[in-house]
Amino acid sequence: MNNSMQTVRVELHSGDEDRSYPIHIGKGLLAQTDLLLPHLPQKRVAIVTNTTVGPLYLALLRTALEGQGIASIEITLPDGEDHKNGQTLNLIYEALLAQRCERKTTLIALGGGVIGDLTGFAAATYLRGVPFVQIPTTLLAQVDSSVGGKTGINHPLGKNMIGAFYQPRVVIADSDTLNTLPDRELRAGIAEVIKYGLIRDVQFFEWLELNMIRLVARDPDALNTAIRRSCEIKAEIVAADEREGGVRSLLNLGHTFGHAIENAMGYGVWLHGEAVAAGIIMAAELSRRLKLINEYDLERIRRIFQLAGLPIVAPKFLSEDYFSLMKLDKKVEEGRMRFILLNKIGKAMMSHEVPTSILTETLVTCMANE
Amino acid sequence: MNNSMQTVRVELHSGDEDRSYPIHIGKGLLAQTDLLLPHLPQKRVAIVTNTTVGPLYLALLRTALEGQGIASIEITLPDGEDHKNGQTLNLIYEALLAQRCERKTTLIALGGGVIGDLTGFAAATYLRGVPFVQIPTTLLAQVDSSVGGKTGINHPLGKNMIGAFYQPRVVIADSDTLNTLPDRELRAGIAEVIKYGLIRDVQFFEWLELNMIRLVARDPDALNTAIRRSCEIKAEIVAADEREGGVRSLLNLGHTFGHAIENAMGYGVWLHGEAVAAGIIMAAELSRRLKLINEYDLERIRRIFQLAGLPIVAPKFLSEDYFSLMKLDKKVEEGRMRFILLNKIGKAMMSHEVPTSILTETLVTCMANE
Repeated sequence: MNNSMQTVRVELHSGDEDRSYPIHIGKGLLAQTDLLLPHLPQKRVAIVTNTTVGPLYLALLRTALEGQGIASIEITLPDGEDHKNGQTLNLIYEALLAQRCERKTTLIALGGGVIGDLTGFAAATYLRGVPFVQIPTTLLAQVDSSVGGKTGINHPLGKNMIGAFYQPRVVIADSDTLNTLPDRELRAGIAEVIKYGLIRDVQFFEWLELNMIRLVARDPDALNTAIRRSCEIKAEIVAADEREGGVRSLLNLGHTFGHAIENAMGYGVWLHGEAVAAGIIMAAELSRRLKLINEYDLERIRRIFQLAGLPIVAPKFLSEDYFSLMKLDKKVEEGRMRFILLNKIGKAMMSHEVPTSILTETLVTCMANE
Repeated sequence: MNNSMQTVRVELHSGDEDRSYPIHIGKGLLAQTDLLLPHLPQKRVAIVTNTTVGPLYLALLRTALEGQGIASIEITLPDGEDHKNGQTLNLIYEALLAQRCERKTTLIALGGGVIGDLTGFAAATYLRGVPFVQIPTTLLAQVDSSVGGKTGINHPLGKNMIGAFYQPRVVIADSDTLNTLPDRELRAGIAEVIKYGLIRDVQFFEWLELNMIRLVARDPDALNTAIRRSCEIKAEIVAADEREGGVRSLLNLGHTFGHAIENAMGYGVWLHGEAVAAGIIMAAELSRRLKLINEYDLERIRRIFQLAGLPIVAPKFLSEDYFSLMKLDKKVEEGRMRFILLNKIGKAMMSHEVPTSILTETLVTCMANE
């Protein structure tokens, strides 16, 4: 029994079809197979994990499943963003085919964002789609990538360029798994938590300003509150716009810049959350230059990322290199870049066109001097 | 103007979302860009074709589009089923990324089933989904693969193992493109046409018995009638069951056997339609042994395939090899193979379990003696 468990629902209805699903958040959920069982159409699952997370949590999960008569096969991948590619995806396909996994065999992602994105895309495309469950074990995955159905892989020419929208049947976020998360990764996850406050909820942002020290120190109550509120905000947005035709793109605050940083540095050198932190500072600087927010807002934003121990200065590259990488962004339309900007803390908007001169000034201001 | 054009609609509604689309069938439609324009969200498209079809029809299509102010990029792939794989898919991704194709850039498949399946899967997964149009140029693609949204690629361990359900915005079946189709490919397409009569429409089957000579001789009216009726039957079935939870699987008559033949021979040695023809004879033989149809029915089925110049004898392999390949079928559930059987000519059903002995006898009866 776990009295502290909380559940957020992602509501996705279209006509007769109901693809809504619960996100369960709390301590010690990994062994609570009763959360998982109702979502498994077959007494066989394939668990995809990596060489870091596997040794920590795989045996616990498999034993719990076995106790309920669920057989599992194990697919362990190398760890890291630089493995989120077609070759690693093919390792999953090969294992599924070799083990004769079927249309009703559920794929379970046990790990961080890379495992979730890879496994989700494999689930979306293996036999044209099999059931999928997310068990995120990093803060970033618990508050962001496991919710909302974005799956995919990187291409040498750009991040997340190949993928699908494919929703899980259930998400199980066990905050106990964060105990083994390195500090740097915890902080990277906090970048996305701050983002939710910035784009949608000034009160949550203020709560984060007051509780950042507790979060960084892994206070369990503070973490569970941050995870729950982040999931609620993401669930609301995804329910309103599953395929990113409109409001969902606001979740990309800082990501056009951030993806360019990740790509320029080489995937995995900066963590995604670190690149997003610096990218949000750039988006905030751009918003200030467009007179949407003022210097004081910008300073508050800088301060909260600093408090979280996240980078607030972008790595130095030629502006043209940034431009060229930002033009790979999926929001580009008719060759024009579009950015998510802040109207104020707690409210984001999509830009139409931004003058190149202002963009260049923003890049120069935000880059490290050397 | 084209007075003889006919339009079949695939009705796909789910709630507010309407993914229904038209299939336009007739002569000389390739240059009629008014059929295409309403479905293009951007004045830029990427046309995917192959080295056989490109030289015949690409210039005509591009010139017609240009006349309407639509810019197009060209992606020409090698021809053949053995290229329906991850490497060729990656050629499409690379070209789309290199040319900065965006979320609103439409992908147009100009070619047969392989081009349609590859391009559709690229459209389903590039930037998590871009608009897609099918211009099928083989009979097989016009009556089958271009309709219904099945897309995908082969894996060394099995055919069509990786893919997605992804619907086109419009299908344009120009029967003039069949003029350049080799005889062998025309006959392969007729296998799927016969299948529609067998599973769903005894009157259409009888019409085919009477008109097979005209079809094989490429009588334009006979061809257009066969294409239209085939598309109508497929559209009805897809509308009822888009993701193959039930009735749609009846379209797989002969395909469990057929896929095993294709795989055992090596992809591309037998054409898909040829393997399906022999596979349908095997399914019919199995149905007879299960006392669902009688010897007279079986003889009629053999005769119509023979009239179409299609193989009615399966290649010789060990039964165990057939079993092992058939177990890769996507219909396998809990390790049990399931088959589409005939109750009578014009009515198909899904089998539950078939005794191994009857299956073995069926294989032995249907295989070539040497």
